Amino acid sequence: MTEEKNYKLLPHIDSPADLRKLDVKELPLLCEELRHDIIHELSVNPGHLASSLGVVELTVALHYVFDTPYDRIVWDVGHQAYGHKILTGRRDSFCTNRKLGGLKPFPFPSESEYDTFCCGHASNSVSAALGMAVAARLHGENRKVVAVIGDGAMSGGLAFEGINNAAGIPNNLLVILNDNNMSIDNSVGGMREYLLKLNTNTTYNNLRYRASKKLFDWGVLNEKRRKTIIRFNNSLKSILTRQQNMFEGMDIRYFGPTDGHDVIELVRVLRIVKDMRGPKLLHVHTVKGRGYAPAEENATVWHAPGRFDEESGKRLESKSDNPCPPKFQDVFGHTLLELAKQNEQIVGVTPAMPTGCSMNIMMHELPKRVFDVGIAEGHAVTFSGGMAKDGLLPFCNIYSSFMQRAYDNIIHDVAIMNLNVVLCLDRAGLVGEDGPTHHGAFDLAFLRPIPNITISSPYDERELRRLMFTAQQKDMGTFVIRYPRGRGSCVDWRCELEAVPVGKGRQLHYGDDVAVLSLGPIGTEVEKAIDLLQQEGASVKVAHYDMRFLKPIDEDILHEVGRKFKRVITVEDGVVSGGLGSAVLEFFADHGYQVDVERVGIPDAFVEHGTVAQLRAICKMDAEAILNIIKRPHPLTPPCE
Amino acid sequence: MTEEKNYKLLPHIDSPADLRKLDVKELPLLCEELRHDIIHELSVNPGHLASSLGVVELTVALHYVFDTPYDRIVWDVGHQAYGHKILTGRRDSFCTNRKLGGLKPFPFPSESEYDTFCCGHASNSVSAALGMAVAARLHGENRKVVAVIGDGAMSGGLAFEGINNAAGIPNNLLVILNDNNMSIDNSVGGMREYLLKLNTNTTYNNLRYRASKKLFDWGVLNEKRRKTIIRFNNSLKSILTRQQNMFEGMDIRYFGPTDGHDVIELVRVLRIVKDMRGPKLLHVHTVKGRGYAPAEENATVWHAPGRFDEESGKRLESKSDNPCPPKFQDVFGHTLLELAKQNEQIVGVTPAMPTGCSMNIMMHELPKRVFDVGIAEGHAVTFSGGMAKDGLLPFCNIYSSFMQRAYDNIIHDVAIMNLNVVLCLDRAGLVGEDGPTHHGAFDLAFLRPIPNITISSPYDERELRRLMFTAQQKDMGTFVIRYPRGRGSCVDWRCELEAVPVGKGRQLHYGDDVAVLSLGPIGTEVEKAIDLLQQEGASVKVAHYDMRFLKPIDEDILHEVGRKFKRVITVEDGVVSGGLGSAVLEFFADHGYQVDVERVGIPDAFVEHGTVAQLRAICKMDAEAILNIIKRPHPLTPPCE
Repeated sequence: MTEEKNYKLLPHIDSPADLRKLDVKELPLLCEELRHDIIHELSVNPGHLASSLGVVELTVALHYVFDTPYDRIVWDVGHQAYGHKILTGRRDSFCTNRKLGGLKPFPFPSESEYDTFCCGHASNSVSAALGMAVAARLHGENRKVVAVIGDGAMSGGLAFEGINNAAGIPNNLLVILNDNNMSIDNSVGGMREYLLKLNTNTTYNNLRYRASKKLFDWGVLNEKRRKTIIRFNNSLKSILTRQQNMFEGMDIRYFGPTDGHDVIELVRVLRIVKDMRGPKLLHVHTVKGRGYAPAEENATVWHAPGRFDEESGKRLESKSDNPCPPKFQDVFGHTLLELAKQNEQIVGVTPAMPTGCSMNIMMHELPKRVFDVGIAEGHAVTFSGGMAKDGLLPFCNIYSSFMQRAYDNIIHDVAIMNLNVVLCLDRAGLVGEDGPTHHGAFDLAFLRPIPNITISSPYDERELRRLMFTAQQKDMGTFVIRYPRGRGSCVDWRCELEAVPVGKGRQLHYGDDVAVLSLGPIGTEVEKAIDLLQQEGASVKVAHYDMRFLKPIDEDILHEVGRKFKRVITVEDGVVSGGLGSAVLEFFADHGYQVDVERVGIPDAFVEHGTVAQLRAICKMDAEAILNIIKRPHPLTPPCE
Repeated sequence: MTEEKNYKLLPHIDSPADLRKLDVKELPLLCEELRHDIIHELSVNPGHLASSLGVVELTVALHYVFDTPYDRIVWDVGHQAYGHKILTGRRDSFCTNRKLGGLKPFPFPSESEYDTFCCGHASNSVSAALGMAVAARLHGENRKVVAVIGDGAMSGGLAFEGINNAAGIPNNLLVILNDNNMSIDNSVGGMREYLLKLNTNTTYNNLRYRASKKLFDWGVLNEKRRKTIIRFNNSLKSILTRQQNMFEGMDIRYFGPTDGHDVIELVRVLRIVKDMRGPKLLHVHTVKGRGYAPAEENATVWHAPGRFDEESGKRLESKSDNPCPPKFQDVFGHTLLELAKQNEQIVGVTPAMPTGCSMNIMMHELPKRVFDVGIAEGHAVTFSGGMAKDGLLPFCNIYSSFMQRAYDNIIHDVAIMNLNVVLCLDRAGLVGEDGPTHHGAFDLAFLRPIPNITISSPYDERELRRLMFTAQQKDMGTFVIRYPRGRGSCVDWRCELEAVPVGKGRQLHYGDDVAVLSLGPIGTEVEKAIDLLQQEGASVKVAHYDMRFLKPIDEDILHEVGRKFKRVITVEDGVVSGGLGSAVLEFFADHGYQVDVERVGIPDAFVEHGTVAQLRAICKMDAEAILNIIKRPHPLTPPCE
């Protein structure tokens, strides 16, 4: 791939060891080639572009200065790590990135010894890297450990817990704060450009000298108080830069900000801080999308732009003659605004995903009633609980796999008080190319044991609207609506807003031989299977129930099915341990129905990346697999005793 | 109760409205009476003493200055709220505190309109209070909202997320930082006493004036930069006080520290800050156990001292002639040290619970290998993951109900990489008097869906030792050991350390009529039921299997049981939705066994407080309930078709 482009340096970098053979003066050219290669690859094989462009120089400098893989670089959120992959032996396989069987979407230890930790969810790098730094210390290794964290991820409580602990125990951790101004609070800035290369800046040094001299004179500072002096220097920098600096006051040495696109300067600074003892933080200033004009101009759109034309910077949308069903996200966004206009108590809460979940639609029209709280899922839920306690009705939208971070908040800060909070779990079920860290596989299983909670999933976009309307009615308690990533099945989705009865499903197909109970849009695979069955002219007659609610589960349907059917198949877009299938088994056991139940869903394994269709086939959750199960009687039933 | 003591003021305070009728000069006497009442009540009715004594003046001052319940006081961790309960209409019922059917262990909204939010788990107050402050604002109410958070709880990431968000949106929240020096990092202090009443301190004001004048002269400060000036003042205070101050730099106005035991001064300060606009923080200095000498001397022991003699300060231990079985906690603590001496890779991690979980035993002998990370459960697990990634073997001990806060960390930072981390879930199952927020009810159900994970629970103390030994063997992956609060059943617990086969249970009783499958120490209730059955001379013969592992579950046992028995009873100290019972149902369904399964466990409801024995009886999980189920055939079995 790369060779075609007549690169001079990149084709010879098969590992960071090759990189370290270069003269430091050659690094700018290497960065240019690496940047170009990323743009070129991503134009044909979609992925996360802007973040990786922003850290090209930082990536090169880190692998140049540090002795990887012996030294550890821990990336926070793997979006930014494409350059890292290309430099660490995956240049030729990079064209398989995010494809089934190809390179994983995010760095992952089993793929490469240079990938030190799982990095699909934000804010975990400092804690993980601190663990590695402590391990090195206990093992007597002179290993360096570096965590690279973006300013957005710094709002996560886990990052704070890591930093707080790093200040408290002996370690030599280096945290690199990759500040690309994409944090939710972009009020910082101003004097920053002036303060580049602050460490060697004479104005700053003069000021520091004069200010500290005064404070010594006044008896506030003295030589014995080393921590105080660090804090003083940190504070002064903070004042000068007018930046929010959480590290000051925490006794973590703070350096920067420095220009993250000057690779030679980065090498110089990293060499200085590398061998310093104690925990320290280097603040690096980068531009998301750097070096590719369209991406620099609109980093949000170019975060993951899909295919595009490299030359013109035009994004290539897949075209279709037929009108497309909308994305569930857009239906959510438009419907939320519609409901919020009717119901004054509705507010929206999102942890840094207003665009991803389409809450930006309401944000645009009713800005005072939408709260983007930053990457802080736990807070998003507890904050919603507080608002609900005083009469507001929050729609708190969090991707299913990120909701794992707010599990206790749901239990302790919402459900236990039976508060009226609508928890919208976007990206539920298999998500495709983002892989195992992003599949919303566990939510049904981890939510079902929580008392007081209503759990629903819409079959299609219209049902999403109905469930949202239902959830915002008076005193509905804690109400979960989970729905998948991407397009549904109704082109004509703008149905009237009307309530559905809580805990009631509906029957979509009638038949006497086997009952299929499904939850959510995976039910469309059941419908497809029934169509296929009819096309084949098979004699088996299937009853298909869309359960709509996992909890409370529709007991009328289950009694009916328990009485009428010997065979039941449950279908859900979630793990088979603990979700719909288990609920059905529990009900039949509690009520003495002896029914053969086969459970279709995500198996007990971390499912890799691929398209949703590929993964559903692998997990035997697609129409074809369901068809086979319907046609084939349960193979293991022992003869009736 | 209180009347007997010849109190002058307290008997007339039936609500904060009565309190507000007092002259401010009467408040010190009221505080004295309130403090005495708390000590007296707790000497006979055990509870959390030291924290509540520390905030007597703060509690009185808050209800005196703020218009509760219209204004909202949000307590962070309800340990400290006994004075609040007594002042808010629960003086006479306080003797029922923590007893079955009596006052709840922690403030809870359904009990009193003065209890604004659930507060069993630390660090949630700022997020919840911010929600209430935002609700007040959107509703156009001039309501004041106050969060009272301890310095220990400030290490929790959720508190940081709340503070961070409070700085970013319009609100008038007041956060009171109750600093009682009990945080893990007690290196702060020094100049603090000198700096009491800092706001009116002329030295500080002079210094601030001179310093800011210089910075104005140098052009660093100017009038337009309001935030800069707040930050500057915050920074200066931080330098002066040599405290770790996370609020500086966050644009939250910072006041204090002030003496939390001077109620008149507290009233004065609260009246000043009450009407200030924008988010603000008041730093209050208190002494845990204040006013009761034994508690002041050893606040950790007197956190929850049990019964004691009020006069002598002597704790009254319940006596027994028979030797007691040890607490599971102590067996854990001693065994961990034993193992750590043999296996150099073992380290201990605890989020602020070294005494509660007995990791202090290892901490004392091997201090460099134990990490108390503060109240930061998520970090505790991810940090363990980082250490495991580089070869250490962490035993990370977290109470079951607090492990809910580290759910994503278990999935994303440990299990997905198959890292060797031993997750020890203390306080699993019903915990008794601490009630619904503290029952370890959900862990089996939320852990079972996670791939790659081993989940075990010891039947008794010897089995705990064996499981701990097993877990620390080479490459055992992510290994959960869950065990309950309190004493087990083996007096002679120091058995040899030996491995048990992973995923294998054992049979404790033989019989042909009904099989009981139990997990963990709740199995002793099954043994008692079998004893009772034999005493009654009943003819039914019970096979009892101690499953030992929930995952991987012992398939040999399940095949045997599926083949041999028509009736199976599962018994677990966890919710019945998703745990052992569900796993057994799933297995039987997958393998075509038609068996009547009855599931014994915690029902689908938040279980209130009471003794463990009372709660087990209520939940029909004790020997008597199990006996009845064994004797009575499943009532709902329909006739065989």
